[in-house]
Amino acid sequence: MTTKDSVNAGGSIAVTERTRLNRIPKRGVYERAEIYKILDEAMICHIGFAGPHGGVAVIPTIYGRKDDYIYIHGAPASRMLKNLELGVELCLTATILDGLVLARSAFHHSMNYRSVVVFAKATLVTDETEKWQGLYAISEHVVPGRWQEVREPNETELNGTSVLRLPLEEASAKVRTGPPADDAEDMDLPVWAGELPIKLQSLAPKADAHLAENIPVPGYLINYSR
Amino acid sequence: MTTKDSVNAGGSIAVTERTRLNRIPKRGVYERAEIYKILDEAMICHIGFAGPHGGVAVIPTIYGRKDDYIYIHGAPASRMLKNLELGVELCLTATILDGLVLARSAFHHSMNYRSVVVFAKATLVTDETEKWQGLYAISEHVVPGRWQEVREPNETELNGTSVLRLPLEEASAKVRTGPPADDAEDMDLPVWAGELPIKLQSLAPKADAHLAENIPVPGYLINYSR
Repeated sequence: MTTKDSVNAGGSIAVTERTRLNRIPKRGVYERAEIYKILDEAMICHIGFAGPHGGVAVIPTIYGRKDDYIYIHGAPASRMLKNLELGVELCLTATILDGLVLARSAFHHSMNYRSVVVFAKATLVTDETEKWQGLYAISEHVVPGRWQEVREPNETELNGTSVLRLPLEEASAKVRTGPPADDAEDMDLPVWAGELPIKLQSLAPKADAHLAENIPVPGYLINYSR
Repeated sequence: MTTKDSVNAGGSIAVTERTRLNRIPKRGVYERAEIYKILDEAMICHIGFAGPHGGVAVIPTIYGRKDDYIYIHGAPASRMLKNLELGVELCLTATILDGLVLARSAFHHSMNYRSVVVFAKATLVTDETEKWQGLYAISEHVVPGRWQEVREPNETELNGTSVLRLPLEEASAKVRTGPPADDAEDMDLPVWAGELPIKLQSLAPKADAHLAENIPVPGYLINYSR
């Protein structure tokens, strides 16, 4: 099985019992295009799975999307990959914080955010072309343009990397935007209220100590943000 | 049971099979003070737990720490709180991204990060004083100084909020810092290599549309960062 050629981004993802938002349904998003936009903008995800010794583990990791699949990678010996390769149920959650929502009462404080939850089973990618595409997707997800400049993986490195594929079949997003929702009787309290937008931003690049002086900082790192 | 009066921050947390780092042991941190520093700096966490319908769910949420406990809160009707109140095993992971690590080869790319993983069972807080302290800890975690200015929760709001307590008994941190670790034979490749520091930063505060004009932006929001 290889990845699809076309992006199936037109419609909605079918809602399941696990992805339906019960409490504040207006925050639920099931449009594939909206879900993909959040997945592409978030930097990392957190993957939860039942461990072999009982209980659940939640591990942060990077990922990349190609069409209707998410790719993750790691050392074949890593605990997470060894577990997920077995095809256990996992939950992948990617969260973007957009701001603090400051209300006039403690109770109505909130956050603006966009998060995606994916339920899936992972499959070890064995096809060489797809493995390469998965690694490329992960690299492009983190730093678009980087892959073209660096030394590509050799045989030993490819063998030392496992790539897993997750289908985007059961997923939903949850989104909060906008100002605080204060109670009418609190509106005249002498307290600042509003939103404090927050964003993951880059600071000045730090060149490696051994870098030749005539190699400039690449354009894709200048003002890098997500 | 109430929270402890003194912070037990002097020693290490005992390593368990679940918190021991097997593959890159030098990245493991078991010092309580170091773990608490990461927990206090991270903004949100992701909590994973086995759902009642099988499989695992991973949900982003804010939290606060007081001494050797983490507090989380939410609506009593929320799926996560209803599940966690039952005392199921959970895993709470908080991750701070510190930078992209750009190597000369695709394979040696990495990230600088600090993450904490906590395994615990949550307990519903029923003691009123502790519930208040838990909510205060969460508020102070997100915006120190805010609680003093806003209207405090009333009876109805307190009844509409559940607070859960998690002991910091089984936890570890994982930390990567520093430059890329390129292979010796790649060092002369004409590729920029180094670190791109990244940070969650605030942009200009947006006042609520109904805010009186004479209320200034509070000092704790100016240049807010973590």
